[in-house]
Order: sequence, then structure tokens, then C-alpha cells
Amino acid sequence: MAQNVYDQENFFKEYIQLPRQVKGLDGAPEWSALKALIPDPKGSAFLDLGCGFGWVCRWARENGATTVQGVDVSDNMLSKARGFPPDAAITYTRADLETFEIPPNTYDIVFSSLTLHYLKNLPSLILQISKSLKAGGAFMCSVEHPIFTSPRNAKFVPDSEGQTIWPLDGYLKEGPRTTNWFADGVVKQHRTISTYVTLLLQARLQLSALDEWGPTPEQIKESPQWADELKRPPFLLLKGVKAM
Amino acid sequence: MAQNVYDQENFFKEYIQLPRQVKGLDGAPEWSALKALIPDPKGSAFLDLGCGFGWVCRWARENGATTVQGVDVSDNMLSKARGFPPDAAITYTRADLETFEIPPNTYDIVFSSLTLHYLKNLPSLILQISKSLKAGGAFMCSVEHPIFTSPRNAKFVPDSEGQTIWPLDGYLKEGPRTTNWFADGVVKQHRTISTYVTLLLQARLQLSALDEWGPTPEQIKESPQWADELKRPPFLLLKGVKAM
Repeated sequence: MAQNVYDQENFFKEYIQLPRQVKGLDGAPEWSALKALIPDPKGSAFLDLGCGFGWVCRWARENGATTVQGVDVSDNMLSKARGFPPDAAITYTRADLETFEIPPNTYDIVFSSLTLHYLKNLPSLILQISKSLKAGGAFMCSVEHPIFTSPRNAKFVPDSEGQTIWPLDGYLKEGPRTTNWFADGVVKQHRTISTYVTLLLQARLQLSALDEWGPTPEQIKESPQWADELKRPPFLLLKGVKAM
Repeated sequence: MAQNVYDQENFFKEYIQLPRQVKGLDGAPEWSALKALIPDPKGSAFLDLGCGFGWVCRWARENGATTVQGVDVSDNMLSKARGFPPDAAITYTRADLETFEIPPNTYDIVFSSLTLHYLKNLPSLILQISKSLKAGGAFMCSVEHPIFTSPRNAKFVPDSEGQTIWPLDGYLKEGPRTTNWFADGVVKQHRTISTYVTLLLQARLQLSALDEWGPTPEQIKESPQWADELKRPPFLLLKGVKAM
């Protein structure tokens, strides 16, 4: 069973106050870059792995998806998702993505936001995602950037010139990283960009985009504290397409 | 004109003592990973951009390439390359890759080792490389890894726990980086992985490999000082294939 911090009440209480939970997609600074990678959902069968409160599921429906399935490991998250006005075309399923089985040749679009870096069994999930796509279908994901997940101490520190630096180490040493993010002992799986890309290619997905997301000049003007994100990217966005 | 440190005598005197120059390909720790990406050269027309002493040009001929062209900006390098027993099937050309024109639809294999991170005009060169490939042809390159080129001070430093860290900053700020490597004021162009990959995709090359090279356990046993390379990868290896 995957670790499920989202159902720890102390974690969840803090987590739901994040801008991306309060404001929805507009509170997620990388959303517009990620949205630009998603094909037009109109008429599609859409799957969201790690759907949380269902923001993207509802967005897909508002943009014409025919059926939408959201999957999440957290009861807390899914209760909130189901609290929005019901829509018979959206199905929410509680499942552990470490073992979830996805039906083959079913979806036009598979999406996953900031979820895959929690999973140990990612190679098997990526293979399943590829099989679950119809020919020409697309898979988009965001993960915490490997530069972000790599360090023993993942915090900016001052250098000898008084500038902040990101203390990179262990980039090529893949495996678990334990951080204290709202709760103690949150475990993420650190993987290199090379591993993410190779998993897609081995699953016969053609890489069609790789974005190391950072804030735009406009976003930094609005939220000056984001300037440091340019020193090391917080998110990695990938898109793979299944051959026709 | 591109900077040409290889024709500065003080630089060159030090540079030719590097293991990869003294021992050839076996002195380049990433060569076996890079070689694994190169299609069988037998019968191919082979182009090496930034050929240096011609080690890879001669390797391609020894492995059956029909014609080999090596291009380099440095007289020092090419004199040395031409000093090896001559081979009518290998042509060496002195040219600045910032402005070099490559004939279209000519090569089966285009190769470039540790050269492209010196070039300002990379988008145009990648487009030309793609056009110069025959259908099904392949482009392989190694560059200094963006994590390696990014920092203001590109040297390991101790952290507060006495461990060495790589002081990452400015990863998303692309542009020139000046280092003192055998000579003062060597200028490299820092680009993100995202930019390298996007340039290949925009040139209609299908990404077929992305390797963030680090030493193997065997290599670290032989050269223990390489263990720190696992903290931040020194090289990025890419392969793109032109659609049939």
C-alpha cells in the first residue's frame, strides 16, 4: 500500500489551505503550462490519476470530455471531490496507484498531476498507462522536478557570497527521500529525468514535450518570493503520445 | 566567430594531457554509453561535429563507415587529426559551427561530443543537422549537463554537515557562463534539458534516448575520485532519429 499522507488529519488540515486547493486550478502556477499540453478534451474518455479534489476532472467535463474517471488513494480527497454538484459522466474511484489496474485501449487522455513521485512501482504503471491509451492518445504528467527531490536537505541555503543556492547532491542516486512537508516522514521517490523519459520511451510512448517549469516574469512580479524558483525548477512536465 | 580556446597555446598544452586525449576513446568514461547509442556505422555516411583529434572519425571508419567527415574550429586539433595515417575516406574540414552549412539529406549518422554547449546559434545548427540526415538517420550528442553548467561557482563546496554539495543556482536562467578551465574566460552556453529536447523535437527528430551519464560502480572502484559525479551528472547524452 502506498503511503497516504492525505488521510492523516494533521497533514490534510494544512494541505487544504494551499492556494491550489483553495483557488483550484488558478492557484496552481504551472497549470497553464500543463493545460497547454493537453489535447482538446471534447468527446474524449479522460483519466486522472491522483485526482485529488477533482479540479481537473471537472475542467475536462466543462471542456467537453464524454467520460471522466478520477482515481485517488485518499478518502479525504475523494469526499471533497464528490461534494461538488454531481455529474453522472464523472466517476471517482478510490484506489492505490501502486496496484491499480487500468483497462487497456480505453482512454484518449491520461493525466496525472504531482502524484507519480510518490510511487515505487512506476515502471509498471507507465506500461499500463500506455496500454490503456487508444492509438494517438496522449499522456501528460507533472512531477516534482528531480533537482527538487534529490537533496538530503531540500532547502535553499546561503553560499559564501550570501546568495541562496540549492544544495544538490545524490542526483544520480535514485530511491526514497523523506521530507517533512506538513507532516513528518512524507516519503517521495527520487528519479532522474533520464529515468522518467526512458520509462515513457520503453512503454512505446513518443516523447512530444518536456518542460522544466519555472514562473514567468509576470508571475514573479505578482509573487516576488517565486524568483528563487528560477534557481532550480520545482516541476517537470512530460507528454508522451501513443503511435497511431 | 565562435570562441576557439583550443588554438590558445596555454589552453591546448594542458588540454592534450587529459586522459581522453592521451588514451583516446578509452580515456573518455562516457564513451561506452555514447557508443551504445550509435547505430552500426557499417556502410554509413558519418559526420562528426567538433571532431577534435578525430578519434571518433577513425572509430567510425574502423567499424565500416563508407565516408567520414570531421569538422572542427581548431587548427591545433585538426593538425593532430591529420597526423594519423591518412585515410582517403576521412575528410577533415576546418569550420566554425556557428555558421557551418551542412548539405541536406546526406548523412546516416551525425555525431557531436562535448561541443554544442559552446555554441550560441544552436537552434539553427540542430535544424541543419536534421535536414542533413537521410530518412531513418540518427543524431547523437553529448553535452556538459545543464546541472553542471548552471552555477555561478561551478565547484563542489562543503555544506554545514561537512558533506560536499553542488551549489546549484540559475538553472532556468539560460545564457553564457564563464569558467576558468585551463584558460581564463572560457565561455559556455548554459541551456536547460528542456531546451535541448525541445530543439530536437522542433527539428522533427524523434527523441529515442536521454541519458544523464554518471560513472558505473566499476568505474568508481577504479577511480574513487569519481564518486562525487553521482551527486550531479557531468554529461547529458541525447539521441534523435529522423522519421522514415
